[in-house]
Amino acid sequence: MRDLEEIIRELDAIESIKKLKARYFRFVDEKKHIELAALFTPDARLVTDGITWKSPTEFANTIRDLTGAAPSVHHGHMPEIDITGPDKATGIWAMEDLLTFPAGEDAPEGHHGYGQYRETYRKVQGQWLIDTLLLTRFRMDALDNWDANAA
Amino acid sequence: MRDLEEIIRELDAIESIKKLKARYFRFVDEKKHIELAALFTPDARLVTDGITWKSPTEFANTIRDLTGAAPSVHHGHMPEIDITGPDKATGIWAMEDLLTFPAGEDAPEGHHGYGQYRETYRKVQGQWLIDTLLLTRFRMDALDNWDANAA
Amino acid sequence: MRDLEEIIRELDAIESIKKLKARYFRFVDEKKHIELAALFTPDARLVTDGITWKSPTEFANTIRDLTGAAPSVHHGHMPEIDITGPDKATGIWAMEDLLTFPAGEDAPEGHHGYGQYRETYRKVQGQWLIDTLLLTRFRMDALDNWDANAA
Repeated sequence: MRDLEEIIRELDAIESIKKLKARYFRFVDEKKHIELAALFTPDARLVTDGITWKSPTEFANTIRDLTGAAPSVHHGHMPEIDITGPDKATGIWAMEDLLTFPAGEDAPEGHHGYGQYRETYRKVQGQWLIDTLLLTRFRMDALDNWDANAA
Repeated sequence: MRDLEEIIRELDAIESIKKLKARYFRFVDEKKHIELAALFTPDARLVTDGITWKSPTEFANTIRDLTGAAPSVHHGHMPEIDITGPDKATGIWAMEDLLTFPAGEDAPEGHHGYGQYRETYRKVQGQWLIDTLLLTRFRMDALDNWDANAA
Repeated sequence: MRDLEEIIRELDAIESIKKLKARYFRFVDEKKHIELAALFTPDARLVTDGITWKSPTEFANTIRDLTGAAPSVHHGHMPEIDITGPDKATGIWAMEDLLTFPAGEDAPEGHHGYGQYRETYRKVQGQWLIDTLLLTRFRMDALDNWDANAA
């Protein structure tokens, strides 16, 4: 049987990581792109739908530039967090997102998607951060892009 | 480093508040409107989509009167709960809902919506209750109202 | 006031049960049907949308046979877990699923559904398992089946 103090430390770390990921989704949809990039370790490795990003900042800035004022929705579900060391953890999350772009000839195609994150986390100076992120998809449905004039 | 007992008390309060909000969503969809109103402090302040409600009971009764037998779906996601005092807490939740009304000329428009709750909680006589609730929206898609004859 | 050790044991059990249910949803969508069946007690009672299953294995194999390569999405939300004994617990979950089948004349109808699980759990040899599962629905929308050629 695990030591009581160890259980407490683990449960506390799990809740911190759930809140870290909650801020990740919230900052995307609130368009807080600087705060979003700060949730990752500086040398974090991000791969989403087969795209490998150079840095968390490149990832956050690209979302910012592509979505503009178009509203987005990103939700995570059913976390499986495992604390694998005093400052290391892994996580699996289900996800759903509605991502659209300002309508236009060159706009990427909007989607309503469903997938899964597999992640690792590191605790740096008392803060849990996302260290690696891999997003894969189970299902992607096309979604009309966002018309600023109709909103 | 926080005291172990303090961590336990906080984690316990966080889980209680998550269950409080789970009952909130469940009671709306199970049409338990009296139980729904009882999840709030009597003088709770509720603001949803710009509407300020006089009381939790007015809020619950209006949902009851407008939806009738029409099924609804309300889910919360990605909580960020902070315990701010022995009997005080704050919370942010993502949300998704499918809200329709019995079809008819005077029926409000149904929607499939996505938004965010910002809330505060108070512990009263050992029970966590919702003290303030603010619901704002990221996206609202129109949804056909409910036809009792087709169901 | 509950004993601190009791609170820790309960919070730890609740997190274990949340991860158990997370694996349930994940194994359905990852098509890990043997692993799915192993999440239940051998004599577990499952009732989904009015269908009573003979065993967890019959349930898992039927999903496997009907869905084939068609992608599926199953998410749980807003758990209310109560630990009712040292090795017993109950749970209520909201759910959303997108379930489609390989398109064909005899294929069942696909759906985008919203509902509720009511479950009980048992701890067997240190592992929490699902002992009874009852799935009911609030709303079911028809969804086009999956066309392998178009994917």
